[in-house]
Amino acid sequence: MRKTWEAKTDGTYFASNLLGGDHSLSLGSIRGAAKHKKLGLIWVDAHGDFNTPETTPSGNIHGMPLAALAGLGDAGLVRLWDEPVPVVDPRRIAVVGARDLDLGEKVNLREAGVMVMSMEQIDRFGMTSTMEKAIQRVGRDVDGIYLSFDMDALDPRHAPGVGTPVSGGLTQREAHLACELIAETGKLAGMDMVEVNPILDVRNETASLGVDFILSALGRRVWNG
Amino acid sequence: MRKTWEAKTDGTYFASNLLGGDHSLSLGSIRGAAKHKKLGLIWVDAHGDFNTPETTPSGNIHGMPLAALAGLGDAGLVRLWDEPVPVVDPRRIAVVGARDLDLGEKVNLREAGVMVMSMEQIDRFGMTSTMEKAIQRVGRDVDGIYLSFDMDALDPRHAPGVGTPVSGGLTQREAHLACELIAETGKLAGMDMVEVNPILDVRNETASLGVDFILSALGRRVWNG
Amino acid sequence: MRKTWEAKTDGTYFASNLLGGDHSLSLGSIRGAAKHKKLGLIWVDAHGDFNTPETTPSGNIHGMPLAALAGLGDAGLVRLWDEPVPVVDPRRIAVVGARDLDLGEKVNLREAGVMVMSMEQIDRFGMTSTMEKAIQRVGRDVDGIYLSFDMDALDPRHAPGVGTPVSGGLTQREAHLACELIAETGKLAGMDMVEVNPILDVRNETASLGVDFILSALGRRVWNG
Repeated sequence: MRKTWEAKTDGTYFASNLLGGDHSLSLGSIRGAAKHKKLGLIWVDAHGDFNTPETTPSGNIHGMPLAALAGLGDAGLVRLWDEPVPVVDPRRIAVVGARDLDLGEKVNLREAGVMVMSMEQIDRFGMTSTMEKAIQRVGRDVDGIYLSFDMDALDPRHAPGVGTPVSGGLTQREAHLACELIAETGKLAGMDMVEVNPILDVRNETASLGVDFILSALGRRVWNG
Repeated sequence: MRKTWEAKTDGTYFASNLLGGDHSLSLGSIRGAAKHKKLGLIWVDAHGDFNTPETTPSGNIHGMPLAALAGLGDAGLVRLWDEPVPVVDPRRIAVVGARDLDLGEKVNLREAGVMVMSMEQIDRFGMTSTMEKAIQRVGRDVDGIYLSFDMDALDPRHAPGVGTPVSGGLTQREAHLACELIAETGKLAGMDMVEVNPILDVRNETASLGVDFILSALGRRVWNG
Repeated sequence: MRKTWEAKTDGTYFASNLLGGDHSLSLGSIRGAAKHKKLGLIWVDAHGDFNTPETTPSGNIHGMPLAALAGLGDAGLVRLWDEPVPVVDPRRIAVVGARDLDLGEKVNLREAGVMVMSMEQIDRFGMTSTMEKAIQRVGRDVDGIYLSFDMDALDPRHAPGVGTPVSGGLTQREAHLACELIAETGKLAGMDMVEVNPILDVRNETASLGVDFILSALGRRVWNG
């Protein structure tokens, strides 16, 4: 993890960890990006990843990285070396696509002031409106927006190659649109695309989608109007 | 059926027939609930269930229960014992998700003044707007709203375990949202969740969805804002 | 092709090529319809079909028919016999559902003034709004609207029986709605339903959908309000 962090601290403007492993790798990548910029953070995920050692039902580290970045949890995760804490102001974090939150995790999220856009918000108001609200929230008074994208935000029908699938998720098109809307802000400061597991994938579908989303977040368009 | 009806007439506020058989069981459950409350009725279904012996192409009783509850059809179905007829005022009934209506059934629905929100309405205006209109219509001057939910309202890709699937139906997320919107009214007086057939189901998907919908209609939320 | 064209030039008001082969057959059918009426054209397709011999990466004729109808490309395709050129004014053409456009094709489309409603537009504003804009554009100062519908506009999950599938396409319900909205204009002058390939189809799903769409475009409704 030190390596990831150091790799990102060489002054590079834009950092992207393409098609990574589990979501705890964002502990390193976002720390690196935050060294140079005050960041807003959009965390696209079926889960909150906002447990602490006190609230976690599973004990998994990959259920804690967002909490740690927001300054909550085990001291060894919250501050890895000499970086300021929190890495990202929790009021500049939005979780998009949540549909599986643990009870204690919900308390943590609420107390920290994180914006949670659950599937219900997307069902009710649509992806465009949801992303606009999230971007407005995390993009205020920051130098850039970091996109940390967990492929399990998608419905398992669209992205089967993930370790902890939850039904009722984003369609391919909604995820695509979310990336396009972030690209339009012109503020993208870095990106992780995580939880692609080739062993669980079906004919590389999930990995291919991930590549498409990265390109869209970087500005690729079918048609520019 | 008398047993179902009597079970529901003991003054219980809320009655739910979880994961039932065919939709004619609502003939009993809704009669029971209507004994204590003036009801509005939201009938989520791919079909109208509004045939009478004169209009039915198939002769199936499960194509007639809504008509009977509205006071149309065979005398033996329209009045089972001593209850007032109709059990529910047809102008306080909304059918949501319809996409397979018989010709004579359409005439019956129109003449009775039932609100029909076909898939076209949902495609055009979205589920939120559709349910708001339905709730407004059936919720006026009543003591409570009864939700009678046929799983074949869903698209067969999402709910394969039904006896009479019709393509082009609700997504899991739309059905979920419909239940959430009903919960928000605070007026839910009872609920049936019917047409789950384990023999036709795929790894219990349809039954699992039904359970989720029931919990949502009863108020469960991922995130409460 | 002459036969198709002549068959359409006998003064018939309405011409429909049901469930055709590749999209180059529209070179004949639309020419026939345009002999009697000034046409607007809605081209529902994952692709632009707007290549010329100079821009085509594949050399396929089925990537060129819309360009030819708009007056661009090989002289032998642009003018088959003695008809005026272009067959349809490019500013009265809208491509709906595009998500796979070649680079040179994009330049052609832009220079010709064709309206392109890519999947991004549909994701962002919905199918109703997208079709309203397309209908407004192509329906001005014309005698009728021609609908040329390539089944590959649909997502391959919904319509597997096509030769050049592209993921991220229309749902069955969106395509249905598009046809209903065209029917409502009362201006439908003709229709092609193409790229249904029985060899690639799964239990005739794609062909069945095509038949449904044709009936919807001709005015069939589940419920008329």
